[in-house]
Amino acid sequence: MHGLLQDSPLTLRWLFERMERVFPERAVCSARRGRVVRRRSYRELAERARRLSSALDALGIEPGERVATFCFNHDDHLEQMLGIMAGGRVYHALNPRLSTAELRYIVGHAGDTIAFVDADLLPAWRALGDLPSVRHVIVVRSPDDPTNESRTLPEYEAILAAAPQLQNWRDLDENAAAALCYTSGTTGNPKGVLYSHRGLLLVAMAWLAADAAAVSQNDRFLPVVPFFHAQAWALPLTALLAGSDMILAGADVSPPSIAALIRTEQVTLASGVPTIWRTVLDALEAGEVNPNDLAPLDRIICGGSAVPQHMLEAFDRLGCRLIQVWGMTEMSPLGTVSRVRREVAPSDALAYRAMQGQPSPLVSLRIMDEKGNELPWNGEAAGEIQASGPWIADAYLDTSTPGMRTDAGGFVVDKSGQRWLRTGDIATMDPMGNVRLVDRAKDLIKSGGEWISSVQLEQIIELHPAVAACAVIAVPHPKWDERPLAMVELKTGQQAEASELLELVRRHLASWQVPDEVVFVAELPRNSLGKIDKRALRHTYAGEAHSGT
Amino acid sequence: MHGLLQDSPLTLRWLFERMERVFPERAVCSARRGRVVRRRSYRELAERARRLSSALDALGIEPGERVATFCFNHDDHLEQMLGIMAGGRVYHALNPRLSTAELRYIVGHAGDTIAFVDADLLPAWRALGDLPSVRHVIVVRSPDDPTNESRTLPEYEAILAAAPQLQNWRDLDENAAAALCYTSGTTGNPKGVLYSHRGLLLVAMAWLAADAAAVSQNDRFLPVVPFFHAQAWALPLTALLAGSDMILAGADVSPPSIAALIRTEQVTLASGVPTIWRTVLDALEAGEVNPNDLAPLDRIICGGSAVPQHMLEAFDRLGCRLIQVWGMTEMSPLGTVSRVRREVAPSDALAYRAMQGQPSPLVSLRIMDEKGNELPWNGEAAGEIQASGPWIADAYLDTSTPGMRTDAGGFVVDKSGQRWLRTGDIATMDPMGNVRLVDRAKDLIKSGGEWISSVQLEQIIELHPAVAACAVIAVPHPKWDERPLAMVELKTGQQAEASELLELVRRHLASWQVPDEVVFVAELPRNSLGKIDKRALRHTYAGEAHSGT
Repeated sequence: MHGLLQDSPLTLRWLFERMERVFPERAVCSARRGRVVRRRSYRELAERARRLSSALDALGIEPGERVATFCFNHDDHLEQMLGIMAGGRVYHALNPRLSTAELRYIVGHAGDTIAFVDADLLPAWRALGDLPSVRHVIVVRSPDDPTNESRTLPEYEAILAAAPQLQNWRDLDENAAAALCYTSGTTGNPKGVLYSHRGLLLVAMAWLAADAAAVSQNDRFLPVVPFFHAQAWALPLTALLAGSDMILAGADVSPPSIAALIRTEQVTLASGVPTIWRTVLDALEAGEVNPNDLAPLDRIICGGSAVPQHMLEAFDRLGCRLIQVWGMTEMSPLGTVSRVRREVAPSDALAYRAMQGQPSPLVSLRIMDEKGNELPWNGEAAGEIQASGPWIADAYLDTSTPGMRTDAGGFVVDKSGQRWLRTGDIATMDPMGNVRLVDRAKDLIKSGGEWISSVQLEQIIELHPAVAACAVIAVPHPKWDERPLAMVELKTGQQAEASELLELVRRHLASWQVPDEVVFVAELPRNSLGKIDKRALRHTYAGEAHSGT
Repeated sequence: MHGLLQDSPLTLRWLFERMERVFPERAVCSARRGRVVRRRSYRELAERARRLSSALDALGIEPGERVATFCFNHDDHLEQMLGIMAGGRVYHALNPRLSTAELRYIVGHAGDTIAFVDADLLPAWRALGDLPSVRHVIVVRSPDDPTNESRTLPEYEAILAAAPQLQNWRDLDENAAAALCYTSGTTGNPKGVLYSHRGLLLVAMAWLAADAAAVSQNDRFLPVVPFFHAQAWALPLTALLAGSDMILAGADVSPPSIAALIRTEQVTLASGVPTIWRTVLDALEAGEVNPNDLAPLDRIICGGSAVPQHMLEAFDRLGCRLIQVWGMTEMSPLGTVSRVRREVAPSDALAYRAMQGQPSPLVSLRIMDEKGNELPWNGEAAGEIQASGPWIADAYLDTSTPGMRTDAGGFVVDKSGQRWLRTGDIATMDPMGNVRLVDRAKDLIKSGGEWISSVQLEQIIELHPAVAACAVIAVPHPKWDERPLAMVELKTGQQAEASELLELVRRHLASWQVPDEVVFVAELPRNSLGKIDKRALRHTYAGEAHSGT
């Protein structure tokens, strides 16, 4: 017996409903170098997205085809995201920070047939050479640049102007593909995650919740996360549902630019990886940014790597709540949100906020040992965290197989037939469902048959006021198999001794978990996501450190 | 091309995921006469719901069968709601305040095969006489009563104890029927609205939003709305998703009991119709309730009829935000939420909050004239409001037709094939999407070819400090066809002259809209929902008033 409610598909058309009818005057503001240079209303943006969809029809781009963008965050890029998806094509934002080889692989694997390229990024695009699948390249001017930087390629404004009409949206199946994003691929080739309309709309609904990002029509939202990272974590889609104004920073996310936008645009909500917010704190300390600039900011959604406790405290002092979240490209990417329950003692609240938080509604999590047994949520047992739910990947895209899909070792099926994403993250969960990331599976240190968490060591060492960042890696050891080595980047002009840092660890952990050595480096290597590149560190240091002990 | 996200159905199983794994220690507290007499944890409640589902298997109740409850709000009733729905049966809460004839009609029409009946309500149940479809009647003891009040009927605790096992939930289609509720039926027979799992889960997700009810794990929620009114507006399901504690008041929702529960249980969030909150304000004024009792209360979700501005102000003074919502049984029932945008001047904020608010995400609204043309959202044009979306009814249940459905004149189909619910409410919408209810279609007064809004007149007259409630009805008139008549209930011990009230109207409206007469009554008649019964008023007064003018 079925219910008698309307058969109303969960597609991103719902965003247009709100943009055009409920929030037509809300604004999307595009900035260059910390200054807003263009403002468009939701009504204009929606109209331009309809026009774009019609232009794609005219160019012969069929529903289901992958449409690449090679752009930073700006209003044209946002309307491309909307127009591509709502017209039934697949929005595929490329990360310009990837290597030429990676980008060539990704475009070829996705089979992108058309690309929208920021004029500023044309040299990088041209460096990719011939891309056989790409039939059209459209140049997108900078928001503050009225000149045509390309004499040879068609321009975005020209194809919009030539669009035969405003698209009246066709019916789409809610499971239709809407967007594609490749994981950064720490091992092997990048893997494609293919999002559906239903998944993206549901994740946007979940972000609205009071205990998630609590996005409101009265927020002014600055996503410092680029669109090419899982649609900026789906938070811009959320802001469009909520009716928040949006401020898009373009390529320049330096602390002075971010601070200027927060001040002048009265930004209340921002998102970004810890690295971004660490640079902002550094700039405050160095006097390059004024604390008053950040006064309008009410909260920051922060994820992508573990947030150190001192960063939470630093933003608390600025009157801004930094809310830690955890997820990954394969999770659309909302997994957990760190909120503090009222029964947590105030003195413990910070430690809770430094965890990764509780699962969102519609996200199932479990932790599994190496034999595939589920572990209890007792805050002690650590295992691989696995995820299930309507916005969790079911498989990776493989355009070369008949079913277009591959497991690539990333999924398991339980006895009931339910599929689970293997996140590769090692975590404990407590009886309140709080996830505490212990490590990436590959970053665990196995010393004398016991596991040592590199993340835990890093968090403790980062408690030291002089430490800017720390990375702990495993180095081979003849007796213990592996031992931890701590690599430390100090804050500019600050000093710390190795002995102080090791003493700090000793106060928190068992003596066998204390690193054998601390190496001070001028700067830790980071990848295109701003995450510390432990592969590079292992390559450089793993052998040397061993020989030195 | 379909996305590659998990095929994870949107069923109410997701509530169990959270109750059992994330919030096992959260509590559901059942009260009698303003005092909590039983507390059960989410874990216990979920386990008992699994047991109930297994017991229904043992009784031979098949998926799809309708299971009636005849109970007030308490923990057993909540676990019945969950266990019935999650096991694939249809939860059908009956309203004990309906007449015997209405109840007999509804039970027969629904084909309820089993009923859970509060011991306190057994006399009323027995008064219904023989109900041919009902094969089992199970008596539910009061939370504070250890004795068996029935010697002849099986008891709820006994069937739970005899349940062969804890249910492992079967797979359900997300469109499976989950719950059934009959509209109060101001004309004709009551009509059945059949909710699906998908619709109820989506509406619960929508209520979580910061700009909706913003339900948090740190809330303690008192639903003063009975479960038999559209599952208490789906807010208890929302609270279970959020992880809020819940306080269930039982039959006694008198102001002293509500106030005692708010004080002793530190209730932060409540829901209820305006009538309930008016009685609380009256009790405060009469000194029967202490304002400090209400101190823990942060916000009230209030709907079911228009909220007068003075009620918003009165709760503001108590430090509690009264948030007006609008919807109906056919809308699961979330349609709009009244929140104030930052661009509204503080002096206008109250007037905005007295409107019905903006559509929730995933709710489409439009206003239509009598010829079926859509009207603009200019705050002036008034037409019937129509609704569409995944939790809006597509048809009414008609168990006598092959498709189990009937339109009953309640729905229209637009050119694109989209179905719309005809709400029967007349409203304007402003350019920000704010709904302002002008009237029920049948309550409009047509005077000299022009419409007069009875709701607008009532709201103005209710601005007078001595007025407790006002109802305006149309009375026949030889020249103008119809004229408004105002029926006024004064606050205890207060006085007002008809001339003062009419002068008040004259200050706001055109002279032809001013009622011809004011009739003071000791108490306005109210129906089982606490709404003023205009049918009764028309019956009694329409002719008399006319003869008097």
